[in-house]
Amino acid sequence: MGIEIERKFLIVGSDWRQTAVGTTYRQGYIVADRERTVRVRRAGERGFLTIKGPGDGARRLEFEYEIPIAEADEMLATLCPGPLIEKIRYWVDYQGFTWEIDEFFGENRGLLLAEIELADEHQIFARPSWVGAEVTGDHRYYNACLARSPYANWKE
Amino acid sequence: MGIEIERKFLIVGSDWRQTAVGTTYRQGYIVADRERTVRVRRAGERGFLTIKGPGDGARRLEFEYEIPIAEADEMLATLCPGPLIEKIRYWVDYQGFTWEIDEFFGENRGLLLAEIELADEHQIFARPSWVGAEVTGDHRYYNACLARSPYANWKE
Repeated sequence: MGIEIERKFLIVGSDWRQTAVGTTYRQGYIVADRERTVRVRRAGERGFLTIKGPGDGARRLEFEYEIPIAEADEMLATLCPGPLIEKIRYWVDYQGFTWEIDEFFGENRGLLLAEIELADEHQIFARPSWVGAEVTGDHRYYNACLARSPYANWKE
Repeated sequence: MGIEIERKFLIVGSDWRQTAVGTTYRQGYIVADRERTVRVRRAGERGFLTIKGPGDGARRLEFEYEIPIAEADEMLATLCPGPLIEKIRYWVDYQGFTWEIDEFFGENRGLLLAEIELADEHQIFARPSWVGAEVTGDHRYYNACLARSPYANWKE
């Protein structure tokens, strides 16, 4: 399924909300370590199983499969230890790119992240005013890490 | 999908070969521990991703999804550490049940296992003459364990 190339940023302000359309996500991890991640996700009324390789800056090997929602729920309940990630994902179009914005709840309440998927790491894109500091490659902001070490615990 | 109930046996002799039809399997593990297994399998020209819960005797939670063969190969090459399991799986019908017989190669050469899938743990079935000692629930014979600790290393 190929390589995922993403850059990730903090969010500044709330101007992005004006045109945002969102879906509730609930996800957990069958395994999540430096070498591999197996994620179960409920996205609205759809289920997904996603395998990712080692995180290496913006590039990451990724395979994603849609699965029956009942099976996703069963795996989340029985095979995903630790607190689940709960968030609303919004999609915002800006000058030819679609930004994905995650607003976290539960133990990660207060955290907002924006991601953009690129064809290559150095592709040029316009930066909306609400895009703040880049955190691409910072493992603390990986969702798998947020499940183990939630934002509420590492804020100063 | 759902609960897998299987009993597993060693094989005696080779009478089972007469009517057996086989397919080459190649499989590895993205993760394999007591609590969960994520297996990638190439079965003939088809690919599968299988998630299993904790092994508890004959019963086990299992979810299986067919995936593109090229993606199975890519995951086997990049995300499955350790030696892969290589075997031929044969199917043998006997008095209303289909037995699965695995003949292992590579580091597990010499090992032959027969499995029967049941509707419940105590279901009665006829035992063919070539079925030997039962090893259901013996973790050493789990394929995930055979990948880490192959038969060649634990034969007396």
